[in-house]
Amino acid sequence: MSEIANILENLKAIKGVHGAALIEKFGLMKGSALPGWVDHEAVAAMVTLILKASQRATKELEQGQFYNAIIESGKGKILFNTVKENVLVVISTVEAKLGIINLKLSAATQALESLL
Amino acid sequence: MSEIANILENLKAIKGVHGAALIEKFGLMKGSALPGWVDHEAVAAMVTLILKASQRATKELEQGQFYNAIIESGKGKILFNTVKENVLVVISTVEAKLGIINLKLSAATQALESLL
Repeated sequence: MSEIANILENLKAIKGVHGAALIEKFGLMKGSALPGWVDHEAVAAMVTLILKASQRATKELEQGQFYNAIIESGKGKILFNTVKENVLVVISTVEAKLGIINLKLSAATQALESLL
Repeated sequence: MSEIANILENLKAIKGVHGAALIEKFGLMKGSALPGWVDHEAVAAMVTLILKASQRATKELEQGQFYNAIIESGKGKILFNTVKENVLVVISTVEAKLGIINLKLSAATQALESLL
């Protein structure tokens, strides 16, 4: 297994995390540990959309470079974190603890940065 | 001053908060306490964009109804919270404490829900 896949599988192993994926900013999937019920193409497309919307919003509001985003919904949370020219996406349940996820996410981000 | 405007001004008064606005889901501004350097039209347009992107993402990933989002950038944070058919937007600095803001945001959301 590649080192990227290994890092993503470790994120997926966190309690309450459905899966994780690393997507290049134009939508290319660089690695994924997503569950079977998730359409990979849809995730990649969604990331590009969120990224564009976020970047435009931060630009219009003079907020500087996009760094990360969290979307909370009725059935779960989606976390988007920039890693160089890529976005690391983590899909979790509502119950998942953001504190624990963010801690492991920051370690994963550092590890990925050294690989990319 | 209307009650909505009053609630938004109270949010703006929080340390580190640049301003707040209440926007109907199709982009109509229902109330605002935004600083002069912020283009109101742009904020309304951005909210619709973020909302569409978020809703599509949560739908594709079977995450249920969109609830809220936070975007963190180099120079600040933007918080989006649904209030019935509207989105309450709060623009803050990087240093602003999310704990304090979220506490006051939840009180503001409840107050707005009783008015809308």
